[in-house]
Amino acid sequence: MLTVLFAAPSLWPEYQEPLPRALAEAGIDARLVTKAAPEAVDYIVYAPSSPLQDFTPYTRTKAVLNLWAGVERIVGNPTLTQPLCRMVDPGLTEGMVEWVTGHTLRHHLGMDRHIVNPGHVWDPACPPLARERGVTILGMGALGAACAAALRALNFPVTGWSRTAKPGCLHGEEGLREALARAEILVTLLPKTPETENLLNGRTLAMLPRGAVILNPGRGALIDDAALIAALDAGQVGHATLDVFRIEPLPQDHPFWSHPGVTVTPHIAADTRASTAAHVIAENIRRGEAGEPFLHLVDRTRGY
Amino acid sequence: MLTVLFAAPSLWPEYQEPLPRALAEAGIDARLVTKAAPEAVDYIVYAPSSPLQDFTPYTRTKAVLNLWAGVERIVGNPTLTQPLCRMVDPGLTEGMVEWVTGHTLRHHLGMDRHIVNPGHVWDPACPPLARERGVTILGMGALGAACAAALRALNFPVTGWSRTAKPGCLHGEEGLREALARAEILVTLLPKTPETENLLNGRTLAMLPRGAVILNPGRGALIDDAALIAALDAGQVGHATLDVFRIEPLPQDHPFWSHPGVTVTPHIAADTRASTAAHVIAENIRRGEAGEPFLHLVDRTRGY
Repeated sequence: MLTVLFAAPSLWPEYQEPLPRALAEAGIDARLVTKAAPEAVDYIVYAPSSPLQDFTPYTRTKAVLNLWAGVERIVGNPTLTQPLCRMVDPGLTEGMVEWVTGHTLRHHLGMDRHIVNPGHVWDPACPPLARERGVTILGMGALGAACAAALRALNFPVTGWSRTAKPGCLHGEEGLREALARAEILVTLLPKTPETENLLNGRTLAMLPRGAVILNPGRGALIDDAALIAALDAGQVGHATLDVFRIEPLPQDHPFWSHPGVTVTPHIAADTRASTAAHVIAENIRRGEAGEPFLHLVDRTRGY
Repeated sequence: MLTVLFAAPSLWPEYQEPLPRALAEAGIDARLVTKAAPEAVDYIVYAPSSPLQDFTPYTRTKAVLNLWAGVERIVGNPTLTQPLCRMVDPGLTEGMVEWVTGHTLRHHLGMDRHIVNPGHVWDPACPPLARERGVTILGMGALGAACAAALRALNFPVTGWSRTAKPGCLHGEEGLREALARAEILVTLLPKTPETENLLNGRTLAMLPRGAVILNPGRGALIDDAALIAALDAGQVGHATLDVFRIEPLPQDHPFWSHPGVTVTPHIAADTRASTAAHVIAENIRRGEAGEPFLHLVDRTRGY
């Protein structure tokens, strides 16, 4: 029987049910524990926030299986000589599509005025159809493309903008101007790089149609916070629903919390989901035992 | 030049822009007016609520084009001898799909606690994936089937229940029990008939999983209002988002308005949309002038 150490205490409540189930479904005879003598541990399920930082005594351990996609906080650990695997969770894309589609429809349908309606106002003004509502996605990688497909299936005319030229996408500075001009609803799904930091600033926010809605499930640094507040106050931006921030959790004194034009969601758009991630962990343990190559093995020389 | 009388005064604000545009796009040379000498009128655009009730003097009129799908309040008018056409608006199905998909995602993602979050609570608990959230649709006609397709495209496992046997649907009393047991989110899209009135009552609401959410964009009479309030108060139903009511506008003293577990939307899920309906009107005038058969012509012997 294998000993699998779950070394990510804060995530244990989420995984304590789905992970044993996934191991059993994969036919793995394992003892899943949150404490163990290091020399008895066959596999470590890990998160970079774990108190476990010295891997030296884990002499029997065949792999360290990260629960996050990012490994930048662990890949440089000199005591980590065991194989290290990243998490690539199929649930992450699905979750992102659901968050983006849900909040797009929320703003498209004007739901908030019905959800919060203390005056009991019956105003049967009908929203336009999705086919009349322009949506622009900045960043057309795997996540952006999946969101575009889901929104197009609901008839939204979707414009994609990409930093590099891609078929069917606008790109470059001139393309950005056109992409923003079409964005009644703007979705930002770019990675954080020196080029994308503060991409949405006073100058570019002014390129949006007046009253546009911004959804940011990408990276907090894509938006200049002060410029966004100013654009909201001026009515240039109608609402912003933000899932990511420069500092998380969002500090209690940040103006986003109390601004009536901002909805804060707590970095949930594309979290790793225990229900799907557990199967990735189980599959990698099955592979380790069968002598097959691990999925998503980190190349320590490249750093990811 | 044709004279088209717009005889539905309360709808004029919605149609005064899209209808002339649709006529122009169809190549129709017409004068669209809200008042005219009856003997000069070529076509009448109509709603049953119109003050125009005597069609006798409209001797030149080639068709009466209704803006509503329902014609029960006009089909028996003995002065109406001109051809009468119903409205079949493609925007109606699209609007219904958008409302149902949007509110399903709203409840699935638990949006309300982020939209209204006066305590600025950062709670990154992640919702399950759509593929783990059972949705049941009662009523699998054209609208129900379109909603099922959109929700399945987002990975929701959708159970359909139909009054009569249909491929891929549950039906009958035993099927209803199973359909309700699977409904973490329940969508009611049945027509109002003696068999469907109060279909959701104390007995059937108890068949839902505890905390289920109800979306009713179908007919107000499908639900026993008092039984729903009792089920909400008992926690058996977690929330109800209702678009249709026994009396509309919903009276200010109805308990739905102030119940924290109820969201009222003002009969907007499947309104006729001027932007799409205008094209149906224009197409029928084009057909009348070209000597082609009208779309959606009412058979007076059948009554619809």
